[in-house]
Amino acid sequence: MANKEIPYKIFLSESELPKQWYNLRADMKNKPAPLLNPGTLQPMTLPEMSVVFCEELAKQELDDTTPYIDIPEEIQAFQKMYRPSPLIRAYCLEEKLGTPAKIYYKFEGNNTSGSHKLNSASAQAYYAKKQGLKGVTTETGAGQWGTALSMACAYFGLDCIVYMVKVSYEQKPYRREVMRTYGASITPSPSDTTQIGKKMLAEHPDTTGTLGCAISEAIEVAVGKEGYRYVLGSVLSQVLLHQSVIGLETKTALDKYGIKADIVIGCAGGGSNLGGLIAPFMGEKLRGERDYRIIAVEPASCPSLSRGKYAYDFCDTGRVTPLAKMYTLGCDFIPAPNHAGGLRYHGMSSVLSQLYDDGLMEAASYTQTEVFEAAVMFAKAEGILPAPESSHAIKGAIDEALKCKETGEEKTIVFGLSGTGYFDMMSYQKYNDGEMSDYVPTDADLQKGFDTLPKV
Amino acid sequence: MANKEIPYKIFLSESELPKQWYNLRADMKNKPAPLLNPGTLQPMTLPEMSVVFCEELAKQELDDTTPYIDIPEEIQAFQKMYRPSPLIRAYCLEEKLGTPAKIYYKFEGNNTSGSHKLNSASAQAYYAKKQGLKGVTTETGAGQWGTALSMACAYFGLDCIVYMVKVSYEQKPYRREVMRTYGASITPSPSDTTQIGKKMLAEHPDTTGTLGCAISEAIEVAVGKEGYRYVLGSVLSQVLLHQSVIGLETKTALDKYGIKADIVIGCAGGGSNLGGLIAPFMGEKLRGERDYRIIAVEPASCPSLSRGKYAYDFCDTGRVTPLAKMYTLGCDFIPAPNHAGGLRYHGMSSVLSQLYDDGLMEAASYTQTEVFEAAVMFAKAEGILPAPESSHAIKGAIDEALKCKETGEEKTIVFGLSGTGYFDMMSYQKYNDGEMSDYVPTDADLQKGFDTLPKV
Repeated sequence: MANKEIPYKIFLSESELPKQWYNLRADMKNKPAPLLNPGTLQPMTLPEMSVVFCEELAKQELDDTTPYIDIPEEIQAFQKMYRPSPLIRAYCLEEKLGTPAKIYYKFEGNNTSGSHKLNSASAQAYYAKKQGLKGVTTETGAGQWGTALSMACAYFGLDCIVYMVKVSYEQKPYRREVMRTYGASITPSPSDTTQIGKKMLAEHPDTTGTLGCAISEAIEVAVGKEGYRYVLGSVLSQVLLHQSVIGLETKTALDKYGIKADIVIGCAGGGSNLGGLIAPFMGEKLRGERDYRIIAVEPASCPSLSRGKYAYDFCDTGRVTPLAKMYTLGCDFIPAPNHAGGLRYHGMSSVLSQLYDDGLMEAASYTQTEVFEAAVMFAKAEGILPAPESSHAIKGAIDEALKCKETGEEKTIVFGLSGTGYFDMMSYQKYNDGEMSDYVPTDADLQKGFDTLPKV
Repeated sequence: MANKEIPYKIFLSESELPKQWYNLRADMKNKPAPLLNPGTLQPMTLPEMSVVFCEELAKQELDDTTPYIDIPEEIQAFQKMYRPSPLIRAYCLEEKLGTPAKIYYKFEGNNTSGSHKLNSASAQAYYAKKQGLKGVTTETGAGQWGTALSMACAYFGLDCIVYMVKVSYEQKPYRREVMRTYGASITPSPSDTTQIGKKMLAEHPDTTGTLGCAISEAIEVAVGKEGYRYVLGSVLSQVLLHQSVIGLETKTALDKYGIKADIVIGCAGGGSNLGGLIAPFMGEKLRGERDYRIIAVEPASCPSLSRGKYAYDFCDTGRVTPLAKMYTLGCDFIPAPNHAGGLRYHGMSSVLSQLYDDGLMEAASYTQTEVFEAAVMFAKAEGILPAPESSHAIKGAIDEALKCKETGEEKTIVFGLSGTGYFDMMSYQKYNDGEMSDYVPTDADLQKGFDTLPKV
């Protein structure tokens, strides 16, 4: 196996693509804490969840025992349009760094949504269609999730209603236009189409919107509209399940050529990309079959794992969602306005939070400027212009590769390149113009967020 | 062969990638007419061309007899970062159309430049570096070529000076930012950095720039600056040579699975994508080995092949380039201002012009609205959001597939999807808002352009 010639880019054949998702929770001894009904503080039941989510997705959300779940053929067919994604050896980056480390990255940006988000969007749209729904609602910030969902809904023939944070709606007209092109209807949030939006507009007429408010509006519409449900692109365990295709493909590609990863690195906002990438590696680690160092990289300006509290919190700023136990900065936490790019979520997937709390993975955080420096170095060496989010993983990988340079170790580093930066050039412009600043929240800043945590 | 199971997307293995370019001119009985020195009206010589172009590229420009030219290993290594590009069966589009035709498309958009342009940019940057030059100059309109060249120059360590048509510089700040991120210096054209630019600004202080003027500025700088040469992303025969990798990969993929193409379709602006795609198919046709229908699709608003004159003309509006014999609308022709997207070049590659004149290929033209309708249909069915340029080929393929539906013929249609539309959402917005108009030049409009043709 090991002496088979390793191509520059490993593309699996279609027959090697995963036919089942891997549910990491099944192998966790300490299961992630259940979502709680914020009214009763009791674990959410299937009937309660099915008011908001598609039934099959609610089942997946609650299932922490089934290790493998079949991927319906319709979803496999959709994903064949853009999967497999390549696992690429970063030869040029290695050379530039002068490191003995071997660096591989799994690139999820080769689809029109520009990121890994399509993996879960296609699953969620499929289940909504199968349930006979008319459409789905969601929110989007930077726009990758909204784009992915619009594409999946266009394909499966579903209505797609997107609440887009007003500031993004105005600053990213082209993201909005991509979604419109796929037939989605896009409303800037807060809007006068919902009670929550009207209330927000009455209280803060000049607000540029928040992801939390957009979530609240999308849920209000889903619950109130016949034949609609709400879908979410990150944080939830069902999303990590769908994203496991990233890790499964990566693992198959490595195994095929007898490559052993030592370190697996991903960026972490809500956790969907990282959770998907690490799933099969963490599974081996949980089952005691092999050890890996697994590193979550987050922005120093929004350090949920590195500096957050492990506590029950709302998933949204509007406080209408169930409570999730997670590493959180408090649902009112908003990163400093200088924060470019994504990864601005206050919390973290319950699955990843539990694994982190159990000492099974590490966290690292970097300032914006460090991250963009790494992004530009990567772009020039490897060609691909990375998303600011994904560039956190690049920075993490470069740092580990430089450690290998010092020690002379030939470690194998695998990182997730979750998306492209085509729609984030405003952030690059700030960096190119030297106008990027690196505010990191003080302990006092963070304490304000912790003070608002619900008493559970 | 034929009964091997055909994957949804055919990815060649690295060992199957072309190691030589195919020079279509070698198989042409009627060679394309030579470039003429506009002063002497004599064919351009190697020394004359080498003032403007890198020497190796000038040689390639003049070579119409060598059928296969080795691709230097350094270029192969660069191209492995984003090649092979997939040949994709458009199952979903076929189903939507209800056609018995089998549709395949070669997708060149999976790289940061978003198009096939990188195939020639990497070759041209390599030869410039090998010649020991400090840098290259070029112009860019929509920005795909400029982006591709910036990427290639960053990789090979060359200075990259781009003159960007002022209106694009202002309306496409993110395209500009991508180039800056790769280290290129971008100047809006016309500028006060050149004599030609100053003259233009003095005469037309409010001009938003033209591609012709940007070409003239880039050439002026290249000729006047020690260690610099000028590079061009389309029209030239050397560019078609480099782009032959598109067609060679396509042909290898089809042959590998025993698929016989009946019709090959590409969009045509200056001809680089079409010329690259059709090269090996046209080669078989020229050698009498197999017949194909080959169709160039162009915008009705800029119909060089369909309605142009076959005559010697300047390659630029500034009339500083050599004269090329080509189908042209006259170098002063500017498409109506409503024209969205690319393919706005007044002329056409001399190679393609000669083939068209010899009746070896057909031309079709469509209005903008028809093209965007096809683009949106394709995006919803196949996921990929196409560039407006590439969407001309989609429209051509759809029309041929619908003819098959009428006749019941199971033809195999192959088309080139040369790029993505991520940086062209302004055009999509016009279409989505119903604000796209379809002005087609009248015969009188065209006559004005023909009247300005140089007397050769």
